[in-house]
Amino acid sequence: MTTQQLIEQIYKKQSFLCIGLDTDLEKIPPYLLQEKDPLFAFNKAIIDATHHLCVAYKPNTAFYEAYGIKGWQALGKTIDYLNTNHPEIFTIADAKRGDIGNTSTRYAKAFFEEFGFDSITVAPYMGKDSVEPFLAFENKHTILLALTSNEGAYDFQTQILEGAALYEKVIKTSLTYKNAHNLMYVVGATKASYLGDIRKIVPESFLLVPGVGAQGGSLKEVCHYGMNQDIGLLVNSSRGIIYASKNQDFALKAAEKAKELQLQMQDELKALG
Amino acid sequence: MTTQQLIEQIYKKQSFLCIGLDTDLEKIPPYLLQEKDPLFAFNKAIIDATHHLCVAYKPNTAFYEAYGIKGWQALGKTIDYLNTNHPEIFTIADAKRGDIGNTSTRYAKAFFEEFGFDSITVAPYMGKDSVEPFLAFENKHTILLALTSNEGAYDFQTQILEGAALYEKVIKTSLTYKNAHNLMYVVGATKASYLGDIRKIVPESFLLVPGVGAQGGSLKEVCHYGMNQDIGLLVNSSRGIIYASKNQDFALKAAEKAKELQLQMQDELKALG
Repeated sequence: MTTQQLIEQIYKKQSFLCIGLDTDLEKIPPYLLQEKDPLFAFNKAIIDATHHLCVAYKPNTAFYEAYGIKGWQALGKTIDYLNTNHPEIFTIADAKRGDIGNTSTRYAKAFFEEFGFDSITVAPYMGKDSVEPFLAFENKHTILLALTSNEGAYDFQTQILEGAALYEKVIKTSLTYKNAHNLMYVVGATKASYLGDIRKIVPESFLLVPGVGAQGGSLKEVCHYGMNQDIGLLVNSSRGIIYASKNQDFALKAAEKAKELQLQMQDELKALG
Repeated sequence: MTTQQLIEQIYKKQSFLCIGLDTDLEKIPPYLLQEKDPLFAFNKAIIDATHHLCVAYKPNTAFYEAYGIKGWQALGKTIDYLNTNHPEIFTIADAKRGDIGNTSTRYAKAFFEEFGFDSITVAPYMGKDSVEPFLAFENKHTILLALTSNEGAYDFQTQILEGAALYEKVIKTSLTYKNAHNLMYVVGATKASYLGDIRKIVPESFLLVPGVGAQGGSLKEVCHYGMNQDIGLLVNSSRGIIYASKNQDFALKAAEKAKELQLQMQDELKALG
């Protein structure tokens, strides 16, 4: 999917919501455990109930890996279901991969070609030759971890490295990588005030912003500091939406939570004019 | 496995060799492609031919993920084969994972409990709460990326961050993490001269050193700068061993290459006294 197509979807749906499919057998409604594939049954119900309210889904691969082969099968069925029924939706493999050149190419092929994701999150620690193999895929997007939403982000990411914080150095350096136009960045909603500085470095890039809702980030602040003339934001909520209820009404409740965020986003889009 | 058990194995086998199982269907002998599970057939033959010459195996998960479900099945069969037939061998999931707290716990469970690996490589970018969930598993080892063997390592890892290079800051900070005694570190053989500085920070930790052989690192230099009184090194070779031949004799040739390294290691151990 091209960035332009993503922007069109945002205007059409009046939403820049990304729903995180962090599907955990201990948190889904217990009656679903009787299903042959409870992970996929849950995801399908969530997608069916919310696809008109969001522009992206983001399964975190850890949740699927934790269940071994069955988990990977459920992830495969989920991305197939999305690509078949909702090809206009942007899909993100939240995998945080990154390795030396040839090995990163393996990961890129696995997620872009085998699974058919539109994008993948990538950890920057290993630098240029660990990131560029992902960037080589046209109309696929590499979402680089810049400033993450967790407490540990202050260990290294915000530390000063030759005059700039590490996360700023990561973003600036990534702009010199081949095919840098395929980059987006992860910036946690819990650190919304940093978004202003980040926008100075990458005024046009899309930012994937986790941490609204359960983690405490504010949508209003994220928009205030992070929105650009093309919106430039995908705001993610996972637990706050998908685990809104543990009962038979879980998909309905998820849709209600997604609708709340979508309406707030609609207001922000109106304000953008 | 405890660190003490690993040290005992090193003395017993007179080897601190780790063999990287980066198994690639395009590089294995073509006749193996007729096997039902070529990835496992290759790994089994390599293990059968080399297990007496090394103390560790390190499958890089990217190579298995690239083949989807079949790849994960082959990885599962490989670790099961090792744990059943060679439980004295240290196993490393070279997965370079790392995510926010709950999610890192998922990865830890997947690799330590579901697969039964002794250790996993972890990327440090997200800091404390992304690493500590791995450290919570006793007698399991978290091998933190410190200074990697690739060119991109110079992008961030060697950059100066408040008076010290980022990789030094990563190592120093990780020592403050809960259960830091379960930490080891990745330090590339291509940057052997840095090992002296690293030994000043972590005199006793084990270092996993990739990059000898195909990537150009020197075993002699690695030992000179990196060895401590308990050896403290696992030196990895992947392509240089497992792809020594593309013919029917591939396992034999792999054993010859492993033997060459083992003999050099034996000399280094003698020099240690």
